[in-house]
Amino acid sequence: MESFFSLLERRVDDCSSLLCVGLDPHPDDLKARAAAEAQSFCIALVRATAPYAAAFKPNAAFFEIYGAEGWVALKHVIDAVGEESQRRGSHIPVILDAKRGDIASTAQAYASAAFDSLGADAITVSPYLGGDSVEPLLRNPEKGAFLLCKTSNPGSGDLQDLRIQGEDGQSQALYLRVASLARAWNAHQNLGLVVGATFPDTLREIRAAAPGLWILAPGIGAQGGELEAAMQAGLRTDAMGLLISVSRGISRAPDPAAAAAELRDLIAEIRRAQKRR
Amino acid sequence: MESFFSLLERRVDDCSSLLCVGLDPHPDDLKARAAAEAQSFCIALVRATAPYAAAFKPNAAFFEIYGAEGWVALKHVIDAVGEESQRRGSHIPVILDAKRGDIASTAQAYASAAFDSLGADAITVSPYLGGDSVEPLLRNPEKGAFLLCKTSNPGSGDLQDLRIQGEDGQSQALYLRVASLARAWNAHQNLGLVVGATFPDTLREIRAAAPGLWILAPGIGAQGGELEAAMQAGLRTDAMGLLISVSRGISRAPDPAAAAAELRDLIAEIRRAQKRR
Repeated sequence: MESFFSLLERRVDDCSSLLCVGLDPHPDDLKARAAAEAQSFCIALVRATAPYAAAFKPNAAFFEIYGAEGWVALKHVIDAVGEESQRRGSHIPVILDAKRGDIASTAQAYASAAFDSLGADAITVSPYLGGDSVEPLLRNPEKGAFLLCKTSNPGSGDLQDLRIQGEDGQSQALYLRVASLARAWNAHQNLGLVVGATFPDTLREIRAAAPGLWILAPGIGAQGGELEAAMQAGLRTDAMGLLISVSRGISRAPDPAAAAAELRDLIAEIRRAQKRR
Repeated sequence: MESFFSLLERRVDDCSSLLCVGLDPHPDDLKARAAAEAQSFCIALVRATAPYAAAFKPNAAFFEIYGAEGWVALKHVIDAVGEESQRRGSHIPVILDAKRGDIASTAQAYASAAFDSLGADAITVSPYLGGDSVEPLLRNPEKGAFLLCKTSNPGSGDLQDLRIQGEDGQSQALYLRVASLARAWNAHQNLGLVVGATFPDTLREIRAAAPGLWILAPGIGAQGGELEAAMQAGLRTDAMGLLISVSRGISRAPDPAAAAAELRDLIAEIRRAQKRR
């Protein structure tokens, strides 16, 4: 059985892209506050940007606003990614951005909700409850999880930057401990990290601590992250291993397809430059 | 406007109970794996135990398994608590156990999903993303949140027990920093803590660090927590401030109403003993 990251890497090769298109149907961006609007907003984005997308990342919260109708819309959006995958003969993974995290029996239910009921390929998960809360999300190697490590928001330092006693007796930031836990928990090649692109120095530090892990990096554009700095800090030595997640930078562009194409090309250029180095 | 905890305290007085009835329709406990079964399982529990319940705590994951149908079922369960409240002329708060936690704009959407769309009164939330991720859940003083502090599962120590540099220069456990952050963030009297009843010594330590905060304590019964030890460790000096959350200990009892009544009485007895001391 293939691992989630081997599936993702195949898609990265198929489309020569590390771009993850965020599907965040924020009510302010919709013509009306309604599940049907969120759905058509996202499906239009999926169709326009699929050629350039290594993955899609729908944000569960912006569907949950509408209750059951929102859940139906989310399912239709994920199905639309499946249709694009089929049309292109290339599976485009869906990362459900839901930031779940609960004790094992409950985590198993979240895995079933995300992977079986919705049909997502991966989910974002909080590390706060520890290893036994993450394990149920990793049981199926074809499905993956991205562990919150250092997030892109201003308050992320409240916990994540706290200095803890490191394994070598030196103090280290909590986010670095999370990175080394993720390495230990990644037995099936299906656990990555979420590291905000808004903190390139931190991204570099985490990449050094976890040279092989996939990193999902949100925060480019609207949240102030800069693409080149993030890629230089976060790419693996094989110029892979980093998903650049962009939401509003694409959805609010006058031509989302053109914006995604441009990002894909820029990413490819930076990867080539890194390979030459 | 009343704060969430003033509403909760009124209910505690009305029913002389600190019992929070957990609504965890685990598929293994249902006649069939279906949203309608989860709904009727929970509504039967709500009707049987309402006289003894200071609050109800539905677990979102066990509804999300069923997608949109599960969301409809969850809404009906929450509505059933509303009907019991009306029948009794005493508002029974619903704490949605969803353990959300995301950047501010997304957290606002989760608040809208839990409070406006589903009609819950409070939600459980992860501290990992920091203060700006919790604030949107606290904007309406009548709605509350419980911040994960020390959870009841075996792996909770992976992060929560890590020693960090304390504000006084001494080292302290991460969970104690979370408790002091919660005190700082509790400007509207609507932020409490989640502390597993499985670790009474830790519960005592957290109570000492946060003498006034409400604590939601799961883990009694199925997860091995003992009622009396937990209450002695976690009650405030006014014999309030602690919600004892029980799920399978009630739902799997031959007579759930009798089990809830017994727990309510036992809790009341322990409170009286503490008051006499």
